[in-house]
Formats: sequence, C-alpha cells, structure tokens
Amino acid sequence: MIKISSNSKLSEKIIIDKFFKKLNFNKIGTYNFENDAAYLNISSKYKTVVTTDTIVENTDFFSNDPPESIAQKILCINLSDISAMGALPKTYTLNISINSKINYHWLKKFTDTLNKLQKKYNIYLLGGDISKSKEISITATIFGEAKLKNIISQNNCNLGDDIWITGNLGNSYLGYSILKNKNFKLENKNLLYFKNKYLYPKPCMFGSKAYKYMNSAKDISDGFFGDLSKILDGKYGARINTKLIPLSDILKKILNKHNPLIRLEDILNWGDDYQLVFTSYKRNREKLLSLSKKNRVKISLVGSVIKKTGIFDDSLQIIKNIHSFDHFS
Amino acid sequence: MIKISSNSKLSEKIIIDKFFKKLNFNKIGTYNFENDAAYLNISSKYKTVVTTDTIVENTDFFSNDPPESIAQKILCINLSDISAMGALPKTYTLNISINSKINYHWLKKFTDTLNKLQKKYNIYLLGGDISKSKEISITATIFGEAKLKNIISQNNCNLGDDIWITGNLGNSYLGYSILKNKNFKLENKNLLYFKNKYLYPKPCMFGSKAYKYMNSAKDISDGFFGDLSKILDGKYGARINTKLIPLSDILKKILNKHNPLIRLEDILNWGDDYQLVFTSYKRNREKLLSLSKKNRVKISLVGSVIKKTGIFDDSLQIIKNIHSFDHFS
Repeated sequence: MIKISSNSKLSEKIIIDKFFKKLNFNKIGTYNFENDAAYLNISSKYKTVVTTDTIVENTDFFSNDPPESIAQKILCINLSDISAMGALPKTYTLNISINSKINYHWLKKFTDTLNKLQKKYNIYLLGGDISKSKEISITATIFGEAKLKNIISQNNCNLGDDIWITGNLGNSYLGYSILKNKNFKLENKNLLYFKNKYLYPKPCMFGSKAYKYMNSAKDISDGFFGDLSKILDGKYGARINTKLIPLSDILKKILNKHNPLIRLEDILNWGDDYQLVFTSYKRNREKLLSLSKKNRVKISLVGSVIKKTGIFDDSLQIIKNIHSFDHFS
Repeated sequence: MIKISSNSKLSEKIIIDKFFKKLNFNKIGTYNFENDAAYLNISSKYKTVVTTDTIVENTDFFSNDPPESIAQKILCINLSDISAMGALPKTYTLNISINSKINYHWLKKFTDTLNKLQKKYNIYLLGGDISKSKEISITATIFGEAKLKNIISQNNCNLGDDIWITGNLGNSYLGYSILKNKNFKLENKNLLYFKNKYLYPKPCMFGSKAYKYMNSAKDISDGFFGDLSKILDGKYGARINTKLIPLSDILKKILNKHNPLIRLEDILNWGDDYQLVFTSYKRNREKLLSLSKKNRVKISLVGSVIKKTGIFDDSLQIIKNIHSFDHFS
C-alpha cells in the first residue's frame, strides 16, 4: 500500500518500484505494496505498540543535510520511543512528501540507509505514501510488539527508585553547536566525530532487553531535565549527582576547559541523543548491570526519586524547579 | 503519545490539551497521550489492517478550504482503504504540520469534525504528533481489524466475476468542476450540493459488511478506470455497460444536456468519490443485494471480468487499453 497522490507524475511510480519496493523484505502482509492497505503480522501473544513522528525540512533538518542523516533521524526518533515502551520494533510505515529538489541520487542514498537500518534493527517497510510539497516532510509510524504486562509506562516511577541513563549525553548537542558555530575550536577528527553524532543519532534499544527491571522509562528527546520531569509527573522530585551524568571523555575535557560555547546545563536541556532515562527499584542494580554488560549498553546510575518535587543536586540544592519548568519555552 | 517537536511554542501544548486530548475517548492504550507510544487494543482473534495517507496544502486541498472539509478528507481517504480490505476501522494516529495561519478557531472546527466523524465511524485517536511547516500537511494512519481469512486483496478477481460499484460516481467531480469554473450554470442549491460532495467526501464502508462476497475490492481514489485496472492487474479485462454506471439523477440530467464542461469519460477517470469497486462471483448477486438493502448502501452491477485485457463497452468496443493506460499521466 504505497500510494501516490493523484497529482503525481509518472516518475513517482518508478520511485516506488526502483527504491521502495525492495524495502518490504518480501514480508507477508505487505502485499508487495500493491494493495490499499497492509496488515501487521504480529503474534496474538503480543500487543502492538505504536509510535509516530514527523520531521520537516527547516525545522528538524536542512535540505542540504545528507539524505543518509534524514533517513537515520526519522527511524531513530521513533525506534527510541518503541524502546522506551519496552517493546521490540517489527515494522513501519513511511509517508514522504517531496519537492523538485529531490533527485534519484538523493532517493538512492535515502533508501539505501533505510535498508541498512532495517537490517540492523530487524524491521521491514509495511507500506506508505508519497506526495508532493514545497518542503520535504517525512512521517514514520513504527510498530513494535510487547506483552501487555511488560509495556513500560512513562509515569510509573516510585519513591526511592534509582534513576539511570543509557549511553552518553551531550555528543549530539556538541555536534549541533559545531554545525551552528564555525568558530568552534577542536581537532578536525573530533569535529567530524561530534557532527556525525548529531547527524546520525543511534537509538538506544535497551528497553526491550531490560523492561523487567524498569518501572518507568522515556527516551531523551526533549533533554534530560525535560524528560525526567515527565517521568516524575509533578508527583515526585529527583536528586541527581551531576558528576555522574555520563559524558564521553572528549566532551568531559571540553567541559573542564570551561569553553563558553558549551555548558553542562545546556547538555541537560538538549535532546537528540535518543538515549533512555529510566527508573528502577534499588534491588535491581546488579541485574541491570549484568544486562548492560551482556548487551554492551552503557548504563549510569545518576540519582534517585525523592518526595520533594523539583530536580536537586547531590547537596539538595535546586537545579530545576519542575513546577516552573517548561520545555516548550 | 501526542508529541511536539522541540522547536515548538508553548501554545502547542495548549493545542493538545484543549483540542486533541478529548479525541482519545478515554480508551485504554492511549495513556491519555502522555507516553512515548501507545498500544493497539485489537483482539487477538483479528489481524490489524493498516493504511496511511498524507494530504498536503496546495496539492490535496487549499489553505482557505473549510477546516471541516480537510478533517473529513484525511479520515475519509483512509477509511475507504480500510473498507476495501474488508476490515472494520478501530483507531488512528494523526500527524499534523501546521503554520502560523492556523488559529484556535481553525483548530476547533478541525477537531470538532474529527470528533463527530470518530463517533460516526466508531474510532478513536490513538496518538500523534504536531510539528511546524510552511504548508499544512496532515497524515493519518488508520487501523482496522479483520480475520485473516476475510481480508480482501485487490488483485484477486476471477474470470467471469461480476463488477460492482457502490454509491454514485461523479458527484465529487462535478463539485470540483464547479469550484474550478465559475461559469458553471446550475441552480444555486445544486451548486452547493455538488460542491459539498467534493469538499465532504463520505467513505463507503460496505467492505466490512460484505467481505464474504467480495473477491477483490478497491476504493475509487484514482478514478473508476484506473482502480478497475489495478484490480484486473494486467491479467484480465472488463466488459462494462456504461449505461449502468451509477450517477445521481441531477448529474444524469446534466450529462444528457451534453454540457461541454462535464463528460462521462472525465467522471470515470476521476476519483474522490471514495466509493468501492469490487468483483464477486455471479452466484452472490442476491446475497449482495440483500446486504445492500439491509445496510442502505446502493450497489450497481456494471459489468464482468473477461479474458481479453482492456476495458470494453457492452458492444465490446475498447474504452481503455489497459496496457497503455497510465493514471499518472
């Protein structure tokens, strides 16, 4: 069910046949993209977990961004949501609105990246839609499977829960800062490293491995403070040892030099790393660390859920007043 | 899981709380739109049928079209696809990209229409995403349920099958012609009637009632000839009695006057009525007519599937050569 708007040109049929058809991986339920709809082939033992996100040119990416980056972003931002629910991704639909700037070269790179990521995350394209617009706009809707009892809810943390973060924070923010500020002084190989962290985010898929030991989880898409606030949901607060916030060694060095262009506070207010923040009972520490080792996913214990609302540092000084915290401002 | 892009303004949180939250109808699995994802609450007896479509300003609608019309279009074009698969719609996700022209007044009308249609078609909003763009762009992904054995495939017609059409064709095309051509002479009440048929299409939901008697089905979104060709799939042809094409009485009168602005051929090449074309064994005629009566859905037997490829009239004169037929041109 890859459909084309009636105003489209012939070339768009070729786009489907040449670039998208192979992405169905010959899976049952896709009808080789020749039907009005498709069906999800998810076992009746599981619930289908759904998440959807749109990225738009000039808001979420720029038209001269590499198509590989745009493909990686649209899948990544949805995959991390599926992970945060404790589900395993299975398949996805894609709606792309393209303009005349998009050529075959662009489409080849874009779909080759989708193909590569589909293999990496073991998902296939279920169907979609191609239309025309002035700005490029891409929507992906990803379907995952999880047993109902294992689905992790965002607002289910308990007083005293440990607060964990997967991976490292800030690499994507530093990459973004470099792209925004040409005066950023750093070795060339590091400049490239961080730019790539921003352009090619990798979702942390730990949720489907460790759901048993997570009470609440969220992907860090609005920034650690913002997303932690959503978990705390105005009912609890958090005591965070900011020294334990996981950062890459290079980023630590840069922060220690007190570069005015990058501060820990900015990192903690910035998303785009697509790591997870989750809470867990203290008794689960060993099990989580063992799963972390087994799955080669770095996890860091950064604090705990406390009674007093707000986000506090280790000496209980307020860092963020949640009541006044507003990630939309 | 209604998410907001990080670049958005506070007002968009209000948009969700004020306009969209009520559309979840308090259904389980939506998490009151407060989670990263949602889950489909479809019984394990059924497969989940999925379809998705995007409509974009200046391609599929105009920015000064009534918001009620845009809401009706985005649901209608997806509901008719679910119906063509023989499935019953259950829930949907919505991704809207809006610009500064969209005000509260617009959003109220838009979401009030969604609310009304949700009640009519017994569906609820599962989640979605709001972002910003220059042009308004709206994606809906609709989920229906059907038993695997009852899912109707588009390319499953048999030699000798009857060819049926639901409802009337052409009302939407006439409405479009009126909107495009100010010189169209018609009584005022008729002008309004046809304009509304174009602006407020109604999907034919007969598929989930009559799936047992349908061999193949498709909603008429690319025009009767185009969609019938997809059903025939280059393997068969069709003999159509064009006198039996269902038209409203007013449209028949207009066609009989040989108005140069509207011809039967144009009607048969135009979609947007969102009726179904389906094929069925001859032995099912009585059962289909009985279901048609019971569900108050007009159905018309217009022809049959023949061996020779192409679309022919009743005297076997070629109307459309399928091999050269190209609905993208």
